[in-house]
Amino acid sequence: MSAAEGMRRCIEDLRAALGDQNVLASGEDLARYQTAARYEDGKAAFVALPTTTAHVSAVVAICRRHAVTLVPQGANTGLVGAGVPDSSGEQGVLSLDRLNGPVAIDLENRSVRVAGGVRLSALNEELARFGLTFPIDLGADPSIGGMVATNTGGARFIRYGDVRRSVLGLEVVVADETGTILDLGSGLRKNNVGLDLKQLFIGTGGAFGVITRVDLEVQPLQRQSATALLAPRDRSTVMAVLLAAEAAFGSDLSSFEGMSGEALSCVFRHIPDTRNPFAPEPLPEYSVLVELSRSTAEPEAGERLKAGLHRFLEAQFEAGMIVNAVVDHPEALWKIRHSISDALREEGKVIGLDVSARRGDLEHFRADARVLVRREFPWLRVCDFGHCGDGGDHFNLVWPRLDAPPYDAATARLARTRLYELLVAKYDGSFSAEHGTGPSNGEYRSAFLGADRLDLEKRIGEALTHGRLLGRALG
Amino acid sequence: MSAAEGMRRCIEDLRAALGDQNVLASGEDLARYQTAARYEDGKAAFVALPTTTAHVSAVVAICRRHAVTLVPQGANTGLVGAGVPDSSGEQGVLSLDRLNGPVAIDLENRSVRVAGGVRLSALNEELARFGLTFPIDLGADPSIGGMVATNTGGARFIRYGDVRRSVLGLEVVVADETGTILDLGSGLRKNNVGLDLKQLFIGTGGAFGVITRVDLEVQPLQRQSATALLAPRDRSTVMAVLLAAEAAFGSDLSSFEGMSGEALSCVFRHIPDTRNPFAPEPLPEYSVLVELSRSTAEPEAGERLKAGLHRFLEAQFEAGMIVNAVVDHPEALWKIRHSISDALREEGKVIGLDVSARRGDLEHFRADARVLVRREFPWLRVCDFGHCGDGGDHFNLVWPRLDAPPYDAATARLARTRLYELLVAKYDGSFSAEHGTGPSNGEYRSAFLGADRLDLEKRIGEALTHGRLLGRALG
Repeated sequence: MSAAEGMRRCIEDLRAALGDQNVLASGEDLARYQTAARYEDGKAAFVALPTTTAHVSAVVAICRRHAVTLVPQGANTGLVGAGVPDSSGEQGVLSLDRLNGPVAIDLENRSVRVAGGVRLSALNEELARFGLTFPIDLGADPSIGGMVATNTGGARFIRYGDVRRSVLGLEVVVADETGTILDLGSGLRKNNVGLDLKQLFIGTGGAFGVITRVDLEVQPLQRQSATALLAPRDRSTVMAVLLAAEAAFGSDLSSFEGMSGEALSCVFRHIPDTRNPFAPEPLPEYSVLVELSRSTAEPEAGERLKAGLHRFLEAQFEAGMIVNAVVDHPEALWKIRHSISDALREEGKVIGLDVSARRGDLEHFRADARVLVRREFPWLRVCDFGHCGDGGDHFNLVWPRLDAPPYDAATARLARTRLYELLVAKYDGSFSAEHGTGPSNGEYRSAFLGADRLDLEKRIGEALTHGRLLGRALG
Repeated sequence: MSAAEGMRRCIEDLRAALGDQNVLASGEDLARYQTAARYEDGKAAFVALPTTTAHVSAVVAICRRHAVTLVPQGANTGLVGAGVPDSSGEQGVLSLDRLNGPVAIDLENRSVRVAGGVRLSALNEELARFGLTFPIDLGADPSIGGMVATNTGGARFIRYGDVRRSVLGLEVVVADETGTILDLGSGLRKNNVGLDLKQLFIGTGGAFGVITRVDLEVQPLQRQSATALLAPRDRSTVMAVLLAAEAAFGSDLSSFEGMSGEALSCVFRHIPDTRNPFAPEPLPEYSVLVELSRSTAEPEAGERLKAGLHRFLEAQFEAGMIVNAVVDHPEALWKIRHSISDALREEGKVIGLDVSARRGDLEHFRADARVLVRREFPWLRVCDFGHCGDGGDHFNLVWPRLDAPPYDAATARLARTRLYELLVAKYDGSFSAEHGTGPSNGEYRSAFLGADRLDLEKRIGEALTHGRLLGRALG
C-alpha cells in the first residue's frame, strides 16, 4: 500500500468517526492551521476537529493505527512551532477549536472546569461576571489546553506564577494505541495519593497526550491597582529598584516588566495610538512597567496604593535609582507592553529568544549579549523586553528590512546559537522559559540537555504512551 | 550466602564508603530512626547517615547491589509511616540528618539553596535575618527534603500553596543501579525545556529517589497581620463566611482554619497554658481561625488590616453568619491550632485521616462522616480540624482510653475504610491530601486508584530507576 493510499484510508476512518464536517483535507480549509504565529509554516495532510473527548480519543487511535504523526494544536498562537505540522505534508493536525463546551464555574471551590479548546478571553469573560479571573496575562489569546501544554507564564508571573500553579486537574487523551482517556483529578487543591500524573502533561507541548479538559483555581479580580512606567538610572539599578519594590509592597507587586528603548521605539513607529509616555523627554534606554494591585474591600485602598507607589517613586528618584516616571493612563502603558511582539514583526524578521536566568544574572546576560550581537552580527537590532521580576527575558533580535544584508536563515540560527551558548555556559540560564519547546528550539535540547536527560524523558514518554509520541512536540 | 551474611556485607560496604561513624547498626543507636510519629514502629537493619550527595549515591548503589531495600528518612516527622522501615529487620534507613550544609540565600533572586536534611526551623531562622520566609506553616519541624518528598501543605496553603509551588530546582539521587545524581534545575522561575523531571520526585515519598538539595523561592515575611477566632452560627455558614472573607480581603487572607469543639477541648485538657478563648462563653461546636496578613511599607497598614477584620466580623455577626469572635492574642490562638495533634495523642489512640474535597463539599462530608461514626463506631470521638480554605480536613478519630472497648487495630482500620469509601464514592475526595503516601494509606491506593493507574505509575518509576524502587514509599 502506498503512503498516499494509507493517508487516504486514515482520513476515511477519521471521517467515519467524526463526521465529514469535522475533518478538513483540502488546501484552502487547511491554511489557517498550517501557518504558525512566527514563520514556521507547514503543510498538513488533514485537520481533525473533534468536538468531544471521545472524538479526540478516536482520532489518536486511528492515527496510531495508520502510523500517521499527529500534531495537537490549540488556538495556534504558539511561538515555537509546536502546534503546526512540518513541511512534509504527511502529518495531521488535531485542532482543539471545536472542543469548547460551556465553562463550569464552582464559586464555593473558587475553581472552574473548562474544555481544552476554550480561549483565555472567553474564560475570563465568564469569570469576570463573578468577580474572578484566571490571572495569566498575555498579549495573545490562546486556548486553555494549549496554555497547559505550554505551561505559559506571562506578565503577572511574579504574583500568580505559571499555568502549572493553577491546574487542579486534567483530563487527557494519552498518545497510546487506544487513545486512553485519563481523568487526572478535578477540583482538589490538596491531593497526594501517589505520582501526580498531570504534571507530566503540563509543559510537554502535547507530546504525551492531548489536554481535553482542565480544572483551574481562579483568583479574585484585581479591584485596586496602581501603575507606573519608570526609567531606571541605568541597567545597574534595575535590580535594586525591584528589590526595593518587593520590600515596599510584598505581594501587592503584580508586575515588574522591563522594555528596551529599541523595542518601544518599534511600538511607537508601527502601532497606531501609541506614543512615548515620557515625551517631551526622550525615550530612555530601558523602562520598567510596575503594577501594584489588590482585591480588597478596605475603604480607599486604591488611593493608598497609588499614594504608596508615588512615595516609592519619589524615594527612588531621590536615591538616584530612577531618572523619570509616568503614572497616568495605565491602559495606554499596558497597550504599549502588549504591542511589542506585533511591532517587532512590522519592523523586520524577528529572531525570538525566550530565555530566563536567575534574576540577578539577567542584566549581566543582557549586557554581555548586546556586546556579542554588536561584535558578531552588527546589523541585527536588539529589541528585548521581558520580565525582570521573574528572570524571564524575550531577548528578541530584529533583522531589519533596510540597511542590512538580505535575511539568511543560517546566520539567524547562528546568532541564536551563540546567544544560547553564552546564556547556558556563563549563566546556567534557560533557552526555553515560557513559550514551551517545539521545532524552533528542539535542536537546542540535544545540544544543552545531554543524551542521558533526553533518554530519560524518552523512557518516561514511552512508559506513558507504550512506545510512541504524538507529533514532534517535545522538540 | 545467607540473608544475614548478605546484610553483614552490605553494612561493611557502607562503612567503607561512609566511614564507621556514619553507619549505625546497633539496637540502641537505631531507636529514634525506627519509631514513627504516629505508631508505625519498625526495625532497621542499619541507618546510613551520608554527609554528602556523593555519599547518598554510594548508599543507593551499595544497597541495590546487595538487594537491600532502603527507606529514605528526613526528620522522621511524617504521619503515614513512609520514612520508617517495616518490622522485618531487613530494610535499611537512609537518614538525611547529616546532610545539612549551610543555607545559601540569593537575595537578588529571592531564592535559597538548601541541603535536603536542613530543618524548616533552621531555614526560616536564617531567612528571617533578611526579612524572608519559606511560608509553609506546620506544627512539626520536618526536613526540607522530606517536605519536598511529601509535598507538604499546611495552615497557610490558601495564600502560599504547597511545597511544589515553591520548588525551583532539585538535586536528586535516583534509585537506580548506580545512584545517578540528577541536577534538575537551580534558581530559575521559568524553565520549560521539556519534561519537568523534578515534578516526579515531589510528593512521591522518596520512592523514585532521594532529594539531596533544593532550590526554593522564598517570600517576604509577613509584616502586618490580623487574627481572629470566630464561631460560625452553624456548619452551614462556614462556607458563606469563607466566601465573604475572600471577597473582602482577596489574597490578604492567609489562613482560614477550622477546628471542631472536640479537638479544642482535648487541647485545653492536655496542653498547659491553653484555655477556651471564648470563656466565659462555652466552646462552640466549630471555630475558625482567620488570619489576614501583608508585607507592605504602607503607613498604618497593620491598623487598617485589624480594622478591616473588625468590620468584617461585625458585618458577619449582624448577618447572623457568626455568633462569637475573639481577636486578641494571636500567638495564643496559633498555639491552640498547632497543639491539636499532640493533644489528641494524649487523649487516646488517634486514627488520623488526612482528606480533602472540593471546598463546598467539605462540610457535607464532615456531616455525613459524623453520622457514619455515630452509627457504626459510637465510642469513637470525632476530633477533626483542618483547612476549610483549601478543602483539606484532618478528620481524626480518637479511640479513648476510657469508656470504650479495648483498642483493636482491625476495627480502627474498618472505620478508616468506611470513611474513605464515603469520601471517594460520594464526594470524589482524596484520601491522602497533604501527608503523602506510605504504609498507612498504601492499601487504599490499590482500592481507589485502580490497577491501570498503579500500573502506569509503576512503568514510569521503572523508566526512572531501571526497574526497582527504593523502600515501599509509594504505598
